[in-house]
Amino acid sequence: MGNAHGDNLFPLMSAAVLTVSDRCSAGTAVDTAGPAAAALLRQSGAQVVWTGLVPDEAAVIAERLVDLCRDGIDLVLTVGGTGFGPRDVTPEATRGVLEREAPGLAEAMRLGSSASTRRAFLSRAVVGVRGCTLIVNLPGSEGAARENLQAILDLLPHAVAMLRGAAHSHLDSPRPAPTGSGEQRG
Amino acid sequence: MGNAHGDNLFPLMSAAVLTVSDRCSAGTAVDTAGPAAAALLRQSGAQVVWTGLVPDEAAVIAERLVDLCRDGIDLVLTVGGTGFGPRDVTPEATRGVLEREAPGLAEAMRLGSSASTRRAFLSRAVVGVRGCTLIVNLPGSEGAARENLQAILDLLPHAVAMLRGAAHSHLDSPRPAPTGSGEQRG
Amino acid sequence: MGNAHGDNLFPLMSAAVLTVSDRCSAGTAVDTAGPAAAALLRQSGAQVVWTGLVPDEAAVIAERLVDLCRDGIDLVLTVGGTGFGPRDVTPEATRGVLEREAPGLAEAMRLGSSASTRRAFLSRAVVGVRGCTLIVNLPGSEGAARENLQAILDLLPHAVAMLRGAAHSHLDSPRPAPTGSGEQRG
Repeated sequence: MGNAHGDNLFPLMSAAVLTVSDRCSAGTAVDTAGPAAAALLRQSGAQVVWTGLVPDEAAVIAERLVDLCRDGIDLVLTVGGTGFGPRDVTPEATRGVLEREAPGLAEAMRLGSSASTRRAFLSRAVVGVRGCTLIVNLPGSEGAARENLQAILDLLPHAVAMLRGAAHSHLDSPRPAPTGSGEQRG
Repeated sequence: MGNAHGDNLFPLMSAAVLTVSDRCSAGTAVDTAGPAAAALLRQSGAQVVWTGLVPDEAAVIAERLVDLCRDGIDLVLTVGGTGFGPRDVTPEATRGVLEREAPGLAEAMRLGSSASTRRAFLSRAVVGVRGCTLIVNLPGSEGAARENLQAILDLLPHAVAMLRGAAHSHLDSPRPAPTGSGEQRG
Repeated sequence: MGNAHGDNLFPLMSAAVLTVSDRCSAGTAVDTAGPAAAALLRQSGAQVVWTGLVPDEAAVIAERLVDLCRDGIDLVLTVGGTGFGPRDVTPEATRGVLEREAPGLAEAMRLGSSASTRRAFLSRAVVGVRGCTLIVNLPGSEGAARENLQAILDLLPHAVAMLRGAAHSHLDSPRPAPTGSGEQRG
């Protein structure tokens, strides 16, 4: 899908979309949420370099996430398994592989989506970093996945730029960074 | 207490209310917050099958929570011990027995209550799941307990339905669920 | 700096400000965010009894936090290292020494600051308690540090009073506390 808006929020950003669903991975249901999230990313200019499906098994989810992070992908979206169902374990699997959590992005997803539906607060999604990869949990329904992603889409380019080691991590990056970076510490 | 409104938000939902307070359990103060929370649940149609009192001791709180979850109660509310006092350890005791956290419900409680008082942000409450039981921490004052519970009361029936293994965990449940559920995975 | 407003939000409250920055601690950049946070505290009547600088090293940050808490300081602000940069580890170092988390204050900082800039949600700040000390992570830019602190400044006096063992931890403290406190439990 091309970029209908002509803007490119994510220059050269690589992304993967991992759908987590017993039924979709068994072929008894069709995944529409994963493709919807991938389409949103492509519209923003990101390169979706991988998509895949796994069942709601914590060990399988974690292994796949570790592999994707090892490949150096900038952004991995998981789709599904964030609710209260007995098999919903995506947040636990994700937290197990995260090195640094980013709770503000999870808060922003729920808060933003709650404008559409109060049930947004039932998402147990977590967001965080492993290596140089940002991992974001999205809910498993197409509408909720789309709304949650849209709620933070504008913030992802800066997060990814910081992950790549952009000169500073200040929140108000419009201010000029101090000179003198690049020092070595023993 | 009957259901004054004639609506039943929680059909057949069982609930317990565990008040956590040194003074109330020692009999030197009267617990009004626990009964207020129980009354709100009954008004919504839930069956409050157990209420009790424990002191602010993490091990005692945790043991009681484990027992209540083992009994298969749908919803356990704790009341008290969510603040900054030296003996306020309910969130720590709760987190220790949770298998899956639900941070969005804790966020929704604080956000909703903050409309009444900014001090709502001082609640350290956690929410989450152990087994098939949803555990929710409420603050220990009657007013705050009521406001925090009211802030998420509408969301609890769907959370409990999902915990029981309702067909799907999608956030926008009005949409028809895909057919073909019930597959077995080896 | 004196108290220009004549009000004293923090009677007798002691505070420390720990700036976390490779560049500032190496002398290749000037710390303006730490002094800005300290100035805000002094304007509110707090006694800033210590300020210091450490590099973005988790072990060094943690050691300094432990020392400050051992000294019985009421409030420790860290400034910097809350973003997504490869060296941003202040939240992880802080969480490692916290005994009790206070997620509501972190949520309130991000929510309050987001009125100025959406990038407030990129702060990975945590807040919590070790011993009788409240530790608050602030972002490393002067503007963001100031906005985040201002977003919770009104809540800190009550949090510190509770930490000191004020009679009760109720969220709506204007209500009279029940009589009969001071009982001993065996």
